[in-house]
Amino acid sequence: MDRLKRIVEFCRTIDREKFIQRKTYLTDGERLENDAEHAWHLAVMALLLMEYSNAEIDLLRVVSMVLIHDLVEIYAGDTFTYDEAGMKTQKARESAAADRLFPMLPDDLASRFRGLWDEFESEETAEAKFAHTLDNFQPMMLQAASDGRAWREGGRRLSEVLRRNARTAEGSKTLWNYAEEHFIRPQIEKGHLKDDIG
Amino acid sequence: MDRLKRIVEFCRTIDREKFIQRKTYLTDGERLENDAEHAWHLAVMALLLMEYSNAEIDLLRVVSMVLIHDLVEIYAGDTFTYDEAGMKTQKARESAAADRLFPMLPDDLASRFRGLWDEFESEETAEAKFAHTLDNFQPMMLQAASDGRAWREGGRRLSEVLRRNARTAEGSKTLWNYAEEHFIRPQIEKGHLKDDIG
Repeated sequence: MDRLKRIVEFCRTIDREKFIQRKTYLTDGERLENDAEHAWHLAVMALLLMEYSNAEIDLLRVVSMVLIHDLVEIYAGDTFTYDEAGMKTQKARESAAADRLFPMLPDDLASRFRGLWDEFESEETAEAKFAHTLDNFQPMMLQAASDGRAWREGGRRLSEVLRRNARTAEGSKTLWNYAEEHFIRPQIEKGHLKDDIG
Repeated sequence: MDRLKRIVEFCRTIDREKFIQRKTYLTDGERLENDAEHAWHLAVMALLLMEYSNAEIDLLRVVSMVLIHDLVEIYAGDTFTYDEAGMKTQKARESAAADRLFPMLPDDLASRFRGLWDEFESEETAEAKFAHTLDNFQPMMLQAASDGRAWREGGRRLSEVLRRNARTAEGSKTLWNYAEEHFIRPQIEKGHLKDDIG
């Protein structure tokens, strides 16, 4: 019973993921997304978009990875992708958070979750690459749906968006091409994203 | 390309699940949960609690089911479990919503998602039973964490909670016993849930 109690305690703790706000507006263009909503969206999208992965993938591993990839932010906070100072300390802060969070679980589950998180972070396996592609594709889809609001407010430049997406095509060339054509280009044409590379 | 466009359009549409409010308070005891957060929580809990299922289960099917089980509420709205009038029309409203929502997807994906939703609703397979157990267990966990706030506010009686949970043990006797002992009984002892059956 102690085992079950520890698992339930962990399940209760991760409720806090619902309070971690991201920098992406939802499709209403008003409210910012939180980490739990984001992870849910990625997981459903994995079920629907797996056929566009460059490589064969184990769907359950991808879904598991996207479901838990942001859990460390319960302790480390959300690091904004365009916050350069924050990005420099992100790895260390999130690794410390993982050391604190996952051992709340019984050993076997702790190492399964830690393994999935490490795999996502390393971005080496086909599953991790596809998970990262989704993690980049989904916020751009919401950007387009909210007419580039966060890009406008942040005065974003195309070079920044391309740098963030330097590896997006590694998981799926098709999804990256789609994002370029349907999410990025229209926002450049409307002047919501500055084309600083010509 | 038309295929991918339809899938992405569906992914954008289901963003609306994040705006559908449930009647359960989050662990802060202040904010109500939304459907997307709820589905995310169930999916992570499926990864951690599958060993307590009464029967062997296909984890990916359970996770897929809980991720999409509330999508129909985008059109049908959330039906409060203690709203008797609403519960009477729920099946018809949700079935009409499914007829409208899933065909947005290409045929193969539409029938996969419809199949998963029908399976969940029928509550006959081991996977569907376990998914329902989680769907009942998680809000009780949050009730306990918010010291029974929604039960107090609604003046809930034990008989109502037991009626709602009439089949919870079918997916997992262990989780139902745990819920009785750790989520329900303490709230009765504190007088937050009225014991009307002695």
